[in-house]
Amino acid sequence: MKLVTYLHNGSTSIGKVEGDLVIDLPRNDPALPETMQELLEAGPEALDRARAVRGGFTAPLPAVKLLAPVPTPSKYLAIGMNYRKHVAEAAKVGVHTPPTQVWFNKQVSCINDPFGDVHMPVVSTQLDYEVELCAVIGRRCRHVSREDAPSVIAGYMVCNDVSVRDWQLASQTMTIGKSFDTCGPIGPWIVTPDELGDPHALRLRLWVNGELRQDDVTGAMIHDIYDQVVHLSKAFTLEPGDLLATGTPSGVGVAMDPPSYLKVGDVMRAEIDGIGHIENRVVAEPA
Amino acid sequence: MKLVTYLHNGSTSIGKVEGDLVIDLPRNDPALPETMQELLEAGPEALDRARAVRGGFTAPLPAVKLLAPVPTPSKYLAIGMNYRKHVAEAAKVGVHTPPTQVWFNKQVSCINDPFGDVHMPVVSTQLDYEVELCAVIGRRCRHVSREDAPSVIAGYMVCNDVSVRDWQLASQTMTIGKSFDTCGPIGPWIVTPDELGDPHALRLRLWVNGELRQDDVTGAMIHDIYDQVVHLSKAFTLEPGDLLATGTPSGVGVAMDPPSYLKVGDVMRAEIDGIGHIENRVVAEPA
Repeated sequence: MKLVTYLHNGSTSIGKVEGDLVIDLPRNDPALPETMQELLEAGPEALDRARAVRGGFTAPLPAVKLLAPVPTPSKYLAIGMNYRKHVAEAAKVGVHTPPTQVWFNKQVSCINDPFGDVHMPVVSTQLDYEVELCAVIGRRCRHVSREDAPSVIAGYMVCNDVSVRDWQLASQTMTIGKSFDTCGPIGPWIVTPDELGDPHALRLRLWVNGELRQDDVTGAMIHDIYDQVVHLSKAFTLEPGDLLATGTPSGVGVAMDPPSYLKVGDVMRAEIDGIGHIENRVVAEPA
Repeated sequence: MKLVTYLHNGSTSIGKVEGDLVIDLPRNDPALPETMQELLEAGPEALDRARAVRGGFTAPLPAVKLLAPVPTPSKYLAIGMNYRKHVAEAAKVGVHTPPTQVWFNKQVSCINDPFGDVHMPVVSTQLDYEVELCAVIGRRCRHVSREDAPSVIAGYMVCNDVSVRDWQLASQTMTIGKSFDTCGPIGPWIVTPDELGDPHALRLRLWVNGELRQDDVTGAMIHDIYDQVVHLSKAFTLEPGDLLATGTPSGVGVAMDPPSYLKVGDVMRAEIDGIGHIENRVVAEPA
């Protein structure tokens, strides 16, 4: 099942995508909630109920505007230096990796639609891309075992961990440079694990203006997704809708020689096989 | 005005504290919202309306349970190494300070009540305290000038940036060790700026079991509160209810020789003149 948050005829709702059709969930089954956050909080039974919906109220996919599937999560965490070749290129710009998992936050205010514009900041010219597989938490959980980790994940999306490199590298904590407004495009939908299959066997790629820049497989992660859930949940409770960006492969602009940053007008396309793609144009930050 | 979120006779509401009395806001003026988040979003006019409330529906302060004034902010950011003497002691444990502001997140899931128990993690024995002045954002804002910064702050609280030192120091990004469940007690109330006066002229102290450990003045900050707002808002939008922990002074347990960490049964009291105190007992993490 592919779950979307979407805008159609001026109203926002949630639905599932089948072929070229968006099948609305709450309008076809009023027992289902109206937001993705509430659907995830309602848990696996609600997802099964969503699976059973036969529409009724539908819209052609090209006629709707896809929005960030989870517009207001309570946490948006991202792991740094988690692909082998990316660790090597990060070392070239002075970012070194400790033996433990390195996590930072993207402020939730940076979340953007899957096809939303990304702002070139007025305070930087070092805008850069990072394609990542994003896990969406589906169950409130703490101290999750590796064995149970798959069961707390509601599904997966594509995300682009758009980064402002000078602000990121000015502080060891990285978070400010990862959190500029609009720098968190996610989507285009949440693909549930039953449909996706093994999340560690996916090819992920990113193009800038049609030029391939990143190309790797999720199996090249240093800390895989389940170990990420185990690690984080030793410290704190993960909640439905929380987002985990699971690391980016090599090929980022800051590590090119010379560095190649994004310019106004550039188009980033981030794609993961079995999920789909998001695409975001760089525009000048509005006044 | 001192704004509280409180529990009384089984129901949660918001109010203002005058002397030993909690004056309920929505019950005395149904035009006022029922949560602090909504009150802050409603802005200065709603705060003026709250100021004008004459109760009516009141409760004796000792009869209510004070809750975290802002239970579910969208961001909880904290600045590291922001008091001169604390920078010196942090260098002793290997934490060095770049010339820019160093920000990390406390996950919002760590927020605790002003008198709530703090859990000794099962995965660490290095639990430590940090008293801080916490600013509460009152207005959606971006690119705030230093001159305008005071106007975007709705008020101030005491916070204890409870830290799990081995987890904090294992990663340069710090955030996981700052975000264990229950490690974010805040309160006891939000004091509005008109009542508090100059936020940079406050004495802040922390005791463990009655022994004074931290004692400094907010004027010793390296980056003051208004510069913090200017810096963060260059990158992203600050929203009503967002929390900024503005740094801790020297005297933390990890920097003592030998280090002195908290034990189950210890009681931390964090106090700021002009605001009040919060007090939190360390208990074993429940199964």
